[in-house]
Amino acid sequence: MTDAKNRQFLIAARPKGMVKESDFRYAETAVPEPGEGEFLVHNEIVAVEPALRGQMENRANYAAPLQIGDVMRALGAGTVVKSNNPDFPVGQKVQGLFGFQDYLVSDGKGMIGRIPDGVSGEAALYVFGGTGYTAYYGMAEVGHPKAGDTVLVSGAAGAVGSLAGQIAKILGAAKVVGIAGSDEKCRWLTDELGFDAAINYKTEDVAARVKELFPKGMDVYYDNVGGEILDIALANLAQGARVVLCGGISRYNKEGPIEGPKNYFNLVYARATMTGFIIVDHVHRYREWSQIMGKWIAEGKLKYRVDMIEGFENLPKGLIRLFTGENIGKQLIRIA
Amino acid sequence: MTDAKNRQFLIAARPKGMVKESDFRYAETAVPEPGEGEFLVHNEIVAVEPALRGQMENRANYAAPLQIGDVMRALGAGTVVKSNNPDFPVGQKVQGLFGFQDYLVSDGKGMIGRIPDGVSGEAALYVFGGTGYTAYYGMAEVGHPKAGDTVLVSGAAGAVGSLAGQIAKILGAAKVVGIAGSDEKCRWLTDELGFDAAINYKTEDVAARVKELFPKGMDVYYDNVGGEILDIALANLAQGARVVLCGGISRYNKEGPIEGPKNYFNLVYARATMTGFIIVDHVHRYREWSQIMGKWIAEGKLKYRVDMIEGFENLPKGLIRLFTGENIGKQLIRIA
Repeated sequence: MTDAKNRQFLIAARPKGMVKESDFRYAETAVPEPGEGEFLVHNEIVAVEPALRGQMENRANYAAPLQIGDVMRALGAGTVVKSNNPDFPVGQKVQGLFGFQDYLVSDGKGMIGRIPDGVSGEAALYVFGGTGYTAYYGMAEVGHPKAGDTVLVSGAAGAVGSLAGQIAKILGAAKVVGIAGSDEKCRWLTDELGFDAAINYKTEDVAARVKELFPKGMDVYYDNVGGEILDIALANLAQGARVVLCGGISRYNKEGPIEGPKNYFNLVYARATMTGFIIVDHVHRYREWSQIMGKWIAEGKLKYRVDMIEGFENLPKGLIRLFTGENIGKQLIRIA
Repeated sequence: MTDAKNRQFLIAARPKGMVKESDFRYAETAVPEPGEGEFLVHNEIVAVEPALRGQMENRANYAAPLQIGDVMRALGAGTVVKSNNPDFPVGQKVQGLFGFQDYLVSDGKGMIGRIPDGVSGEAALYVFGGTGYTAYYGMAEVGHPKAGDTVLVSGAAGAVGSLAGQIAKILGAAKVVGIAGSDEKCRWLTDELGFDAAINYKTEDVAARVKELFPKGMDVYYDNVGGEILDIALANLAQGARVVLCGGISRYNKEGPIEGPKNYFNLVYARATMTGFIIVDHVHRYREWSQIMGKWIAEGKLKYRVDMIEGFENLPKGLIRLFTGENIGKQLIRIA
């Protein structure tokens, strides 16, 4: 421990519109002391995800409410640096809901777990964590592409979408198309990750391209964005299509009334299903999925990319990057 | 055959906004003569359903396109009155896509079938037809309420909704609530059909009543209407809820852009599913379902109500009544 203080970012305001740095307040406290049965964690890498934006407003019902003045919630990976708990000795690598702060004390219960030997903190916060399992479960079990199916993924250069599209290919999809926000992202999808095609929604006519790429409609649409792109997908469903509702990043920063998908009734004409899910419902299956994905990674079939930025002071910026679309792959912030 | 002519209503115009009588054109032709292997059907009762409105515009992809000048499509029940086909002798009761006309010739292939002995034309056009099977399949297999589940049905005094709600009760739902458009309809639902409660959407605050009646949200929402009521239901889903998309009568007569369900993202928070279907995909299961529903009807558990109006000239009016909400139960028109 070289730091004598515990740096924190607290929630200063419920975001209105785009989340911004002034929604957070920097604070410093003393490094806490672990009591009996407790241990001190030094938080080293912080992970951000779009859903945190909604949690700052308590929009979701699946996460404990956050209050103004609370330490901002986020997953982190770190090391036990002081311990009165033999199950979590000094040097143990751990991950959990550590928040936007350097240090925290835990008794080992609740949202904290050991990082297995041989797994990096980055991997624990991404593929072998809720983000990776969201991609796996949403694609493999909700979208469940069959061999020969066609698949569209939005937010495809993001942490979830980039895995979800690859998983569809591994499962035998005949065509996987990603939608992303820059030519660089699109090239990454097709040249590195094996997507069959990519659409730059900032420069291309998405409706025309989707129609052209899916002349018979798509069998699976994995939605990370909502908004117009969801409507375009709904207008291009194959019979029996599955729409996987994973995220709606286009709407998280919207103020005022949000439009619904006006083409929702195509779910009837296409005999289709639109399904939402929350990955934490499936914690009991994480081990199973980590083995499946671990094997694919070892075989070189599944690639993951971390977008690491450095510096504690960049924690709010790390979150904001998700909404400006600056990140490619999983956004992490190294704070130690 | 007392009539020397075949009365018809042809499609005169694609409806704009509310479907109206001037969208149809009355015509008379000669009664057709059956050729070899053919027979002549005298159409006696015509059934109308909201989906026909969309078919007049060729909105749906599951039904053959209709053209201006075509005989208006509709199911009918009648009797073979002349026959060169031993499989369909004179006197045989038949049902099929007979249209808005008195007579038609058939070769017994395509959309025509014998009405079993002991089944009335009314029942064949309702419970033992696509309408009844839509209610059964949509509720029992898509909504699939488990014992103790709570269920909301919109358009509940209509042909499909009134059956769907009763089916939910038969399957063990703890609470079934219907939404309908008059106090008379609401009383029918609760006093005659065993619904636990009914909401008059024309006089009551639907959002407040739904919240009050489903304090923990509903497990199944069977949607016949779309629009605001769908949005209210989406805001009140229990975890793991099933939204059955059967119809969207509130939107069929809308001109211009139609709003989507702005609360669709609650499908994520509720880990819920919204599913559309078209009953004709399941024709191979009609016999199975007719046995299930036939038993319920015989036991007095499932009641059905026919709203019969008289007179060929009232065929267009019969269709229009579905959208003005005048009908209670299944709208039929007796033309002979």
